[in-house]
Amino acid sequence: MMYKETNTRSIAKGFSWRFFATSVTVIIVYLFFGRLDLAIAAGVIETISKVLLYYAHERIWQRILWGKKKIEPFNLWFTGLPLSGKSTIADLVFEKLKKYHIPIERIDSKDIRDLIPDIGYSRDDRNRHMHRIGHLIKTLQNNSISTVASFVSPYRESRKAIRKMVKNNVVVYVKANIETCKARDYKGVYAKALRGELQNFSGVNDVYEEPIRAEITIDTDTMETEEAAELIVRYLKKNYIKI
Amino acid sequence: MMYKETNTRSIAKGFSWRFFATSVTVIIVYLFFGRLDLAIAAGVIETISKVLLYYAHERIWQRILWGKKKIEPFNLWFTGLPLSGKSTIADLVFEKLKKYHIPIERIDSKDIRDLIPDIGYSRDDRNRHMHRIGHLIKTLQNNSISTVASFVSPYRESRKAIRKMVKNNVVVYVKANIETCKARDYKGVYAKALRGELQNFSGVNDVYEEPIRAEITIDTDTMETEEAAELIVRYLKKNYIKI
Repeated sequence: MMYKETNTRSIAKGFSWRFFATSVTVIIVYLFFGRLDLAIAAGVIETISKVLLYYAHERIWQRILWGKKKIEPFNLWFTGLPLSGKSTIADLVFEKLKKYHIPIERIDSKDIRDLIPDIGYSRDDRNRHMHRIGHLIKTLQNNSISTVASFVSPYRESRKAIRKMVKNNVVVYVKANIETCKARDYKGVYAKALRGELQNFSGVNDVYEEPIRAEITIDTDTMETEEAAELIVRYLKKNYIKI
Repeated sequence: MMYKETNTRSIAKGFSWRFFATSVTVIIVYLFFGRLDLAIAAGVIETISKVLLYYAHERIWQRILWGKKKIEPFNLWFTGLPLSGKSTIADLVFEKLKKYHIPIERIDSKDIRDLIPDIGYSRDDRNRHMHRIGHLIKTLQNNSISTVASFVSPYRESRKAIRKMVKNNVVVYVKANIETCKARDYKGVYAKALRGELQNFSGVNDVYEEPIRAEITIDTDTMETEEAAELIVRYLKKNYIKI
């Protein structure tokens, strides 16, 4: 497990338990005997003897694995045209998920190169690259780590390959008008592609195959980033994040 | 965290706690009043009221992160000549570590290609490859996952780079006489290298730089696999595996 319980936590649990348990004892003794002095005496004796016992009991259970369940990881897979807003929404979702304290890793096309080198932009190269990323996600999932991944991933076949490799795959299609993306072109990549300086650029000189069965579709023409992120988090809470 | 506590576990803890706690109550009441009937009555009332309370108390604490500590991951890094026996010892250590239920991943040069493609065997290529593997280990360590890695890793500089990137790095130098490795050559790789069909083959036509400060050195001429694995597990238990 990713976290272990500290001694301090076990002690704190002992005291918090004792507070509630002794209150119940005091109430019961008072109800039965109608005597406050007896009730308080019972409370004092119980407190002293049980705090230590509770602590020992906690530490013993720390060593027992039975009844612990591996957390089920999910993979949130953002796909869409370059500059459609995938990374921005994915970053916000990742931020919002922090408060649930689930083990989770952010994987973005621009960061992944340190780990898995880009090998090219032909269909075959892209599919091979996707396959490697699927492998990474699988390795993380083996260890209960969920993932928030954002990749253009323009081909149906490679998204399908990812879906087959990982579990609890949630495809988020970030749908944006190609004209909107071009207008947003702060990196100048669309301009380059349109001038023919970038080959195999999805949406310009290579195809982007729209997902047919995305779990979630975000239409960026009608939905703000904040609203989209909230919608995705709600979907995850409903289906995968169980506390 | 990788595991979460099931409802069943919380209930079981409630009953096990109640057994011990009520025994203490019964003994105290008997010692004070010398009456078995009163002692038993107290035990019955306490049992009924507290099992439910304990269960509720456990479930509330499930939602509180305070006092939980992230598990510190380690990286066990096996280095040595090709066919020195790194993978065999690493596999056995990995097997033995299972019983401690720590989150752990096995990374071997022969399996890693699905994830991170080999880019070549020149010094630069190897160093770049090692850097990527360091990145993978770091990603896993961010999520409290320990690693058992086995790579020839012939250059001091790349082992040093790994040490800088990851934490709790334990280098295991699997020391084997080059003649022993050649004799073990069931894959025929040494023969190929000696015939000049493999370039940059560590120990034949490329250097293997012995580690100067390996945490553990296994001399395969004098130590059996089982003994070596035991020694390594003992080292980990002493330094990193704290239950």
